Amino acid sequence: MASSQMEQDRSNYYDIVIVGAGPVGLMLSTILARWGYKIKHIDNRPEPTATGRADGIQPRSLDLLRNMGLKSAIMAHKPARVYEVAFWDPPTSGRGIERTGTWASCPEFIDARYPFTTLLHQGLIERVFISDLEKNGVQVQRPWTITGFSSNEQANPEYPVQVELEHVDGTAKESLHAKYLFGGEGARSFIRNQLQIGVTHKDPIAYVWGVMDGVVITDFPDIKIASSTDSDWNPRKTASEADVQESAKKILHPYNIEWERVEWYSVYPIGQGISDRYTLDQRVFLGGDACHTHSPKAGQGMNTAFLDAQNLAWKIHAVEAGFANREILKTYEPERKEVAETLLSFDNRYAKLFSQRPPPADTVKAATDSHADNKNHEDNAFIKTFKESCAFTSGYGVSYGPNALNWSPEHLAKSPLIHPKGTKLSTGRLFINSNVTRVVDANVVHLEQEVPLNGAFRLFVFGGDISKTSRALRDFGNNLNNKRSFYSAYLREDLGQVSHHEKHNPHSHFFTFCTIFAARRPEIEISRDLPEVLARYRDHVYADDRSDARFPDAKAVAHAKMGLDEDLGGVVVVRPDGYVGVVVSLVEGSGTVDALNEYFSTFCSKKLGEVMAQL
Amino acid sequence: MASSQMEQDRSNYYDIVIVGAGPVGLMLSTILARWGYKIKHIDNRPEPTATGRADGIQPRSLDLLRNMGLKSAIMAHKPARVYEVAFWDPPTSGRGIERTGTWASCPEFIDARYPFTTLLHQGLIERVFISDLEKNGVQVQRPWTITGFSSNEQANPEYPVQVELEHVDGTAKESLHAKYLFGGEGARSFIRNQLQIGVTHKDPIAYVWGVMDGVVITDFPDIKIASSTDSDWNPRKTASEADVQESAKKILHPYNIEWERVEWYSVYPIGQGISDRYTLDQRVFLGGDACHTHSPKAGQGMNTAFLDAQNLAWKIHAVEAGFANREILKTYEPERKEVAETLLSFDNRYAKLFSQRPPPADTVKAATDSHADNKNHEDNAFIKTFKESCAFTSGYGVSYGPNALNWSPEHLAKSPLIHPKGTKLSTGRLFINSNVTRVVDANVVHLEQEVPLNGAFRLFVFGGDISKTSRALRDFGNNLNNKRSFYSAYLREDLGQVSHHEKHNPHSHFFTFCTIFAARRPEIEISRDLPEVLARYRDHVYADDRSDARFPDAKAVAHAKMGLDEDLGGVVVVRPDGYVGVVVSLVEGSGTVDALNEYFSTFCSKKLGEVMAQL
Repeated sequence: MASSQMEQDRSNYYDIVIVGAGPVGLMLSTILARWGYKIKHIDNRPEPTATGRADGIQPRSLDLLRNMGLKSAIMAHKPARVYEVAFWDPPTSGRGIERTGTWASCPEFIDARYPFTTLLHQGLIERVFISDLEKNGVQVQRPWTITGFSSNEQANPEYPVQVELEHVDGTAKESLHAKYLFGGEGARSFIRNQLQIGVTHKDPIAYVWGVMDGVVITDFPDIKIASSTDSDWNPRKTASEADVQESAKKILHPYNIEWERVEWYSVYPIGQGISDRYTLDQRVFLGGDACHTHSPKAGQGMNTAFLDAQNLAWKIHAVEAGFANREILKTYEPERKEVAETLLSFDNRYAKLFSQRPPPADTVKAATDSHADNKNHEDNAFIKTFKESCAFTSGYGVSYGPNALNWSPEHLAKSPLIHPKGTKLSTGRLFINSNVTRVVDANVVHLEQEVPLNGAFRLFVFGGDISKTSRALRDFGNNLNNKRSFYSAYLREDLGQVSHHEKHNPHSHFFTFCTIFAARRPEIEISRDLPEVLARYRDHVYADDRSDARFPDAKAVAHAKMGLDEDLGGVVVVRPDGYVGVVVSLVEGSGTVDALNEYFSTFCSKKLGEVMAQL
Repeated sequence: MASSQMEQDRSNYYDIVIVGAGPVGLMLSTILARWGYKIKHIDNRPEPTATGRADGIQPRSLDLLRNMGLKSAIMAHKPARVYEVAFWDPPTSGRGIERTGTWASCPEFIDARYPFTTLLHQGLIERVFISDLEKNGVQVQRPWTITGFSSNEQANPEYPVQVELEHVDGTAKESLHAKYLFGGEGARSFIRNQLQIGVTHKDPIAYVWGVMDGVVITDFPDIKIASSTDSDWNPRKTASEADVQESAKKILHPYNIEWERVEWYSVYPIGQGISDRYTLDQRVFLGGDACHTHSPKAGQGMNTAFLDAQNLAWKIHAVEAGFANREILKTYEPERKEVAETLLSFDNRYAKLFSQRPPPADTVKAATDSHADNKNHEDNAFIKTFKESCAFTSGYGVSYGPNALNWSPEHLAKSPLIHPKGTKLSTGRLFINSNVTRVVDANVVHLEQEVPLNGAFRLFVFGGDISKTSRALRDFGNNLNNKRSFYSAYLREDLGQVSHHEKHNPHSHFFTFCTIFAARRPEIEISRDLPEVLARYRDHVYADDRSDARFPDAKAVAHAKMGLDEDLGGVVVVRPDGYVGVVVSLVEGSGTVDALNEYFSTFCSKKLGEVMAQL
């Protein structure tokens, strides 16, 4: 067959077909497009979302956007930043309303980089993704819809999914072959319905929300930060714009409010539900509102969608690039479904928390103050729920359960060096934020942001005291170079041609190494203190020499925050999406690399290490 | 005369003609264009500066760019950030070179928002300005040059300057009338020459500098942060690119360096000199390299140019908008010339400092550590020069001498309330940076950045303890409303039509008020705690409730940093360019406003206040 004919025959073959260009579809598409995948992305609306409705980007989502290099495009719109929420209620006696409390959106104990919610019109957020997509050659095809699909791995192991697409006016059709199909079509998902996947409604009573964006004139003092729990406002009754405005006037009385302009307005019922499955065969996946719907109160919809997409993207990449077993795709549903379930159950407790009167100021202080001695307050239900609420509304609270990726005592990797005593890192949770000084240019950087979202695992080698770990580091380098190590097993095929400017993946597309010493920057000499394999990552060598008022006695704050020994260090494996996979002691001999080989062997495509060789 | 004919006759009348589109001309043009002035801006080069040469933006200049809303456009280019400088010298014995010290570019004691130098190609920096200019309808006319000018205030009081312009190929000419002419043409200024203003060379020996930008391969550990003082490198001898590369190789030995690509390369002599005058008649002004040339070592050229332009821009605006006496234009030359002179004399001491061996580590630590007890080190010449050097290289060291704008005991304003005991603010120096919480939206903000560069004076009313200052604040509001107050004297003509969205200048284009209480945010009720005139600036009310590790005992850190009483507060007048004009106690009665009336009377266009009425 001639090459051009071959190509033509392959023109309707795609790595993935993505249906729906809301937050979840756009995030998935944007990530996979950057990693070079061939994408067909459709949406049944003729135009992207109008600027209309504002949505809140959580602190953790902003971290993710920054890790993708998209944060500055978001911030260029000068979005509002919500640092506090104020609560207003009718007084116990008398009329009108009074402020019953103001709480930080993201108190200090969360240790977020951006302790605020970023408010921006959803359409503007989506445009940031669409623009990035277009840079990578992907156009969302509109207005097109999906009319059918089937999936059969046995008939076509490489492209098992067949997808039928159609222009919404029926004037054109396309029939495609794909490796994957993703349904990000929102609550009324065609794909979910076709798969006959049910939705379990956690809360039989559907809420009705009235939301209005506009420009107002008011003397209400907390206009930019208010949340109302007035039970008199029943938006079921408020069908018209004027009715919603009248309700708001009544709620805010004795304060005045007048509308200059209404930009967007909607009254809509929200059913709180979760899809029973996120995938049936690890070929056709669902995400975002197709999987979970909840009240807009906690602002979870878009943020949960982002993280669904990120979770799935790197796993598809790990499988398709030949690094991981196809089995890891089975971790998508339990990891993300548990998050959705926890969110919904939390949503109810959250509502209950705020329908009560806030507790005394000292209890709130104990809940929010990271310095306070909370020992006496541990049993306080308010503090517990409040802390959980902050963790959820910031996005920092996500915790993935044990599986091959997230080590636990039940994991197949059994090395006693795993999860050393004292570590404050939890597997399945985010890598803790820390400031360090980059050695090559003395820049103060955020360590957790140093490796961009490139699909690679991030191995943070905390080197402790150079004089005490030099032999352990040398042994670590030697054992990495062992040809059965996880590292050597996935070396780049173009190893000899890699540019010396390559910072992150000079050896392998699946790993980036960062080395952090408990030393001052001028004391570190890259060529002297690091084994050759780590020294190659010269842009990823750091001094743990920044002070932090919360750790006044720490010699090395980043080591201390992670709970790693300031003298002996330790190795932290962080998944490509920023969650901790495993923590291993840094020791002399082969133990550290052996333990890592054990860990990676459980989900990698190749047999690794001496230990595995002996099995 | 018909209106259209009138307009045509006025078409060659401009507020200002700006010659030269380097840093000083572009900054001046950008600021004045934003404030609505009619500008003719020419440059004799056919194209803007190519990206070629990198230039360093000082921390203080970055503050200014942020105040203009241009910082994000600069940062979008992902410039290098220089946090440290490393010094390498031949060892006392042996061969090659060794690192003799690494010092922070901007140590903590400077208290800069951005403690680093931002390195970016000059062409990219200039394009940020050009793009902003174009948004305001100003195009730099190229390649055009100035061929003559005259200035005669008696013949034409409104447009006293006559300017002759010509296309560089002589094919077109323009003859213009202008209120001002600005020469930002660089070291060989035509305007300066025509005015027969001499240049005094501070240092008879002109240095020759060889500079090369490119992409290199090297094992030199500090490649991103190195500065060499090797006396063997004599760039006078190095005329060719290959010669410069050979010199660099020799200097860096035993480390290797190879060039992949050379982007820009130049060997040029630098004469250190200052123009004897910056203006003769306050109509034709000079600035930037036309006024001062110095070695590129301390990276002062562009930054000094920026601040020349900013200094002149707001003064022209204050005069032309009818607020200030024309006399204040006379402060431009002494303020900016003294800065240039101090810089040049410092430049020599700086060079000397770095040609010596660095002192012992503990001395450097004492110099850089803001916590260290420096009492024992005050006499140490190294520490003194080092601290000065940091102040200069950060841009935070500028100090304008006493004049009508910068209060001193010799000032005509003699109120005993002026410059209360304990204040740490110095008139003629930058307003001290501080973090506060904005009341309306609970955002943590940088107080010194809250008022954009809009030509208005910034009045910071530190309100201390609300319960102790409520009467003083009420009296302050009442006295502001007195019709002879500085504030009432310059009310907007369109006062009744001002939008309620106007945040900064609801009453007057010449003032913005900010009120800061030593209280926690929820304790502040704008409508209850502020007099009506201040309450109108609802977006400029702040809680001084942020903690700072350097002020562990302060109840209100911003008050404490300024040296203002945490109970009684005080009023700080900051010039439109960010430098402190005067500090006045906040007292009950008319004293505070009387003192401010006295201060403003010395340079305002109207007689102000009861005190002045009695004179």
